[in-house]
Amino acid sequence: MAPSRTNLERLFAPASVAVVGASTSPGKAGHEALRALEHFRGSVFPVHPSAGEVLGQRAFASLRALPGPVDLVLFAVPAAACVQAVREAIDCDCGSGVILSAGFGEAGPAGAAMQAEIERMCARSSFRLLGPNTAGFVNRELPITASFLLAADRIPPGEIAIVAQSAGINLTLGFLLAKLGYGVSCAVGLGNAVNVGAADVLEFLAEQPRTKAIALHLEGVNDGRRLYEVLKRVTLQKPVAVLTVGRENVADFARSHTGNLLGSHALRVAALRQAGAVVVETTEELASAAAALALGRLPAAFDPGVGVITAQAGPGLVILDRLKARGVSVPALHPSTEARIAAQLPGSGYAKNPVDTGRPGASFSDVALTLAADPQIDVMIVFALHEPAAMSPADVLPDVAARAHKPVFFGTMGPLDEIAPLAAMLRQRRIFVAESPEQLAHVAAALAEDAKLRARLVAFEDSRMKSATIDVPNPCDEHATKQLLEALGVRTPTGVVCSTHEQVRVAFRQLAKPVAIKILASEIAHKTEVGGVQLDVGDAAGLRAALDALDAIPLGSERRYLVEEMAPPGLEVIVGAVRDASFGPSVMVGLGGVFAEAFKDTAVRLAPLTTARAQEMIDELRGATLLHGFRGGPPLDRVALAETIVTLGDLLSRHPEIQEVEVNPLRVYQQGVIALDGLLSFERRKLTPEA
Amino acid sequence: MAPSRTNLERLFAPASVAVVGASTSPGKAGHEALRALEHFRGSVFPVHPSAGEVLGQRAFASLRALPGPVDLVLFAVPAAACVQAVREAIDCDCGSGVILSAGFGEAGPAGAAMQAEIERMCARSSFRLLGPNTAGFVNRELPITASFLLAADRIPPGEIAIVAQSAGINLTLGFLLAKLGYGVSCAVGLGNAVNVGAADVLEFLAEQPRTKAIALHLEGVNDGRRLYEVLKRVTLQKPVAVLTVGRENVADFARSHTGNLLGSHALRVAALRQAGAVVVETTEELASAAAALALGRLPAAFDPGVGVITAQAGPGLVILDRLKARGVSVPALHPSTEARIAAQLPGSGYAKNPVDTGRPGASFSDVALTLAADPQIDVMIVFALHEPAAMSPADVLPDVAARAHKPVFFGTMGPLDEIAPLAAMLRQRRIFVAESPEQLAHVAAALAEDAKLRARLVAFEDSRMKSATIDVPNPCDEHATKQLLEALGVRTPTGVVCSTHEQVRVAFRQLAKPVAIKILASEIAHKTEVGGVQLDVGDAAGLRAALDALDAIPLGSERRYLVEEMAPPGLEVIVGAVRDASFGPSVMVGLGGVFAEAFKDTAVRLAPLTTARAQEMIDELRGATLLHGFRGGPPLDRVALAETIVTLGDLLSRHPEIQEVEVNPLRVYQQGVIALDGLLSFERRKLTPEA
Repeated sequence: MAPSRTNLERLFAPASVAVVGASTSPGKAGHEALRALEHFRGSVFPVHPSAGEVLGQRAFASLRALPGPVDLVLFAVPAAACVQAVREAIDCDCGSGVILSAGFGEAGPAGAAMQAEIERMCARSSFRLLGPNTAGFVNRELPITASFLLAADRIPPGEIAIVAQSAGINLTLGFLLAKLGYGVSCAVGLGNAVNVGAADVLEFLAEQPRTKAIALHLEGVNDGRRLYEVLKRVTLQKPVAVLTVGRENVADFARSHTGNLLGSHALRVAALRQAGAVVVETTEELASAAAALALGRLPAAFDPGVGVITAQAGPGLVILDRLKARGVSVPALHPSTEARIAAQLPGSGYAKNPVDTGRPGASFSDVALTLAADPQIDVMIVFALHEPAAMSPADVLPDVAARAHKPVFFGTMGPLDEIAPLAAMLRQRRIFVAESPEQLAHVAAALAEDAKLRARLVAFEDSRMKSATIDVPNPCDEHATKQLLEALGVRTPTGVVCSTHEQVRVAFRQLAKPVAIKILASEIAHKTEVGGVQLDVGDAAGLRAALDALDAIPLGSERRYLVEEMAPPGLEVIVGAVRDASFGPSVMVGLGGVFAEAFKDTAVRLAPLTTARAQEMIDELRGATLLHGFRGGPPLDRVALAETIVTLGDLLSRHPEIQEVEVNPLRVYQQGVIALDGLLSFERRKLTPEA
Repeated sequence: MAPSRTNLERLFAPASVAVVGASTSPGKAGHEALRALEHFRGSVFPVHPSAGEVLGQRAFASLRALPGPVDLVLFAVPAAACVQAVREAIDCDCGSGVILSAGFGEAGPAGAAMQAEIERMCARSSFRLLGPNTAGFVNRELPITASFLLAADRIPPGEIAIVAQSAGINLTLGFLLAKLGYGVSCAVGLGNAVNVGAADVLEFLAEQPRTKAIALHLEGVNDGRRLYEVLKRVTLQKPVAVLTVGRENVADFARSHTGNLLGSHALRVAALRQAGAVVVETTEELASAAAALALGRLPAAFDPGVGVITAQAGPGLVILDRLKARGVSVPALHPSTEARIAAQLPGSGYAKNPVDTGRPGASFSDVALTLAADPQIDVMIVFALHEPAAMSPADVLPDVAARAHKPVFFGTMGPLDEIAPLAAMLRQRRIFVAESPEQLAHVAAALAEDAKLRARLVAFEDSRMKSATIDVPNPCDEHATKQLLEALGVRTPTGVVCSTHEQVRVAFRQLAKPVAIKILASEIAHKTEVGGVQLDVGDAAGLRAALDALDAIPLGSERRYLVEEMAPPGLEVIVGAVRDASFGPSVMVGLGGVFAEAFKDTAVRLAPLTTARAQEMIDELRGATLLHGFRGGPPLDRVALAETIVTLGDLLSRHPEIQEVEVNPLRVYQQGVIALDGLLSFERRKLTPEA
């Protein structure tokens, strides 16, 4: 209640807590939440309309009856009663609250209305509210367990913070970390997140010195752009690993869950990585990646190298396969390193990276040190089955790590009762011990990815835009869009807009043959589908036939024609920019023109972006090889393609009135690009469940 | 030594074992292997050239000095000494052996020569040899631990068999199973597999009643075709889950490991699935899938349905996302089921599949039973955080499983000391307990996949070929290949082979215009690259220009021309059949003609195959939507495409002299297909590291 503390600080580190709905019935949320506060060293006030005492503590009839405003109120009454209770908490100058109850936005229109009312009340005050529809949070530094899940009280303290949209995932992660032998600083379940969102908690955690790494779980994101901006700052300070669901179409169930729309999974993943967060695939990976990252990050690097040393080739091969699948470099060693390792190894070993020591012997430690000393190696991973007669990891590894000044990860398997004390001892020495070859590869990959993304965040992120604001006609037909593109430096075919056949004939004479003739009419959105595009018109007969065809299209409005020189053949791509409802301006590129959609080969980023970032997008395409000189052909102009992406992104960033702009196809040549079609829209498209 | 036992049975279930290289030095393989035999109840004979006693047991100077032939000899002497020792074992009529030593095919030419010598000796006798370069095996039924890895002796007994190419993975899997609370019947590390291969062990295990499921690990496979044929029989008897490495280019390290080439990962995966084996991604998944499958399979079904019930929506969403990513059906429930669940649930639950119960209450069991009773549901998965005050899984789940007569998998998280006894109790009742939402989804997916693959194995596999043997000219140029295709029922363009300009002009007059004119010459393999294909020739001037262009190509051999009618535009695909060095005849289909390679959108299967199996291939393509009526277009002739695949597969199966046949492009229409180019080769292509 010190005036220097923000209400967000009072929420996560309260000195006093009230429980509205404190109950004498075991199993009820209000009962369990009160029990979970048993170890809390601050003041606890049960609120119950009639009971004089709950769980042996004096109860109060209402928040108004308390001796003074508390830092935190836990609401464990039905949804309908929460609205009044929150109002009372605000009126009483309480600092913050957690609504543990469900029945709000996720439960239909009535719940959504109550949620909106609570959101409005919070927005009008400085009261900070977590939830509704959350199982709460734990803060192990204090400690406090603000949850009806009694078991949450047993998550051990540690250096990892969890921020999870789902309270269930929040606790799942806490227990997964415990299973790995690690603990949490804070673990927060956001629930429906009407007031306190992921970005708020991340900002709070960035300033908490005990938190060394953050595990983030996201479903749909309401204000993606703010999350992106906050993450860009936080990831420079602390490593963030993130799991985001919704790769598949799970929109119906997701909406029933927190009432949020999921939005595009691909865009969310791209935005998170662009902001420097390491995106992982599973809750188990999220836990292990966060645990490993909390031990220490690599310096920012574009392509950090992993050195692998294994006593068994089979697991080594699994590790190598996984590292490569994640795009992690397992670099060739310096010849002198290989020579030295070859001399240190017994006969049947493999002295390259990965190093296969064969059954480990006395030289294991020397081999590891030699590998670690190679300048290509930034992080080391070691795998060896439990074979104490051959090698003692407890003696070898901490020594190697200390002398190499590079992180060392260890993986082993053996009888549990022998492995467990070994692992605990190594953890004590800050060496991560993996439980499978894949987990070992994945934690090393997370460390490398964190270093890579940070290097790119520093080098590629620069939101200065090249282009200035520009006049955009509304509506903006194909020709107007192309003029706009030309003004922005994107080449389009030479062409003329004509209102009469005579104008068309004049244009035809002046332009290089063959030409394309397209119908221009505001009522036609998809020209090709109505036969409104006549290609390869080369002579007078062709011209007549083309005009006949275009004139046969029934039209209510004015009929105009766009006559354009045909562009030479080239690689067709689609480039677009669209304003996402949550993340704002974004850009996409796809190979294959119309086939881009069928092959699902597209890359997305948030705009504005730099040319370097746009080139990163292009390299991400499966078909990127088509640009690099496919089948002996010449390499194509990736820079011009990247600059087109940047230009469209800048356009949307400068012009909030534009909803979408798309060039399809854009032809890419050895030198330059040409936009063959352009579509610009001011209309907000309905967000599809999984766009 | 009973004459009724095969030497393979004597290998894995010996009554007597000799250890060649038994050593008095702790840490040495021959010492550890002898110690690992401490619990073996048969006879053990240390073999040592001079010591009278090793580890308190009488030692023998050589195998010849033994009282009689033993069932199994463990070789723990250096590679060079193994050759002589194996010879002696065969001469002494021993039944089988395991070479624990390394330094053979994986270690360079000298080792490869020794390995070849041992392979020859075994092939000439009935002696069965495991290895070399293996850490051996355990048979928990006997029990026996034939390994220098002492810890292997502590893998608990159970119902799961492991067959692993890598001995390191073999033991890793054994310990992973132990960690999950399960045990093994047999666990075999194949090593370099010169004599006993995966197929042999699978055949052996199929007959072992205590083995309920098999976990298989593969790197490169020497005789893929035999493995495929054996697997097709074994998977009908017992479930097989398999992990195969080498998705990425890891060929160098793999070769250093067992000396085997990896071959194509895609083909290996396709062949394994075609044979009914469930392909998984990680060692952890392999262990959990095998453990779950050992509890019981689903009946064969083309699309089994999973019912999900969760107490926390967040983990439920993760589970749903994962199931969908694996192509597992989470079907809509019957309206009456939904109505009943809605009535059973408290207010804020979600009564569809997945069912979200909200905080679980007394109705949890009823809800689960109602869901299980739905006819769409074949297997149930239940997730709930550890909340004993709200729900007791130990009381609810075994009862639900017993009454529903459908498999139930459970996932939970909580304090380890509270979860562990609960999990043990549920395992006792044959309910699998997962350690994360993803593991829960993956075991259910494995069960569904096993049922799906088996349904397809029964319905799709039929190796009768449609076509008969046919005359194949050698060499077989484009025109001859097309005539062959026509004879096999694959349409090709109408065309004429001409030797003179006059013949070309006659052909031009007779054929429908425009035509394509291609150069035919045995020395030109890639016509397009030398300008040897002239398209769209429609008039006399075009004809002259085309012939001029073709005549400008410098040529040593006879110059001929293929004049063909141009086919109408259509979707271009590539279809081919190739004889794989390990798996034999295989077929492939890819969308996009030349783009198929760039987009890496291809599917493969072993041939011969049925049309239904070929259609399954087509559906697997990412761009399959292009065939289903893309962007409002008409659906294309998938059946004709499938039949073309079958035809090419039959051709290679019938004609062992043909190495490869490829049609690229094949155009697909609403009705039928046309092969625009054909390439047939009798030459074995060099197996690329990762073809």
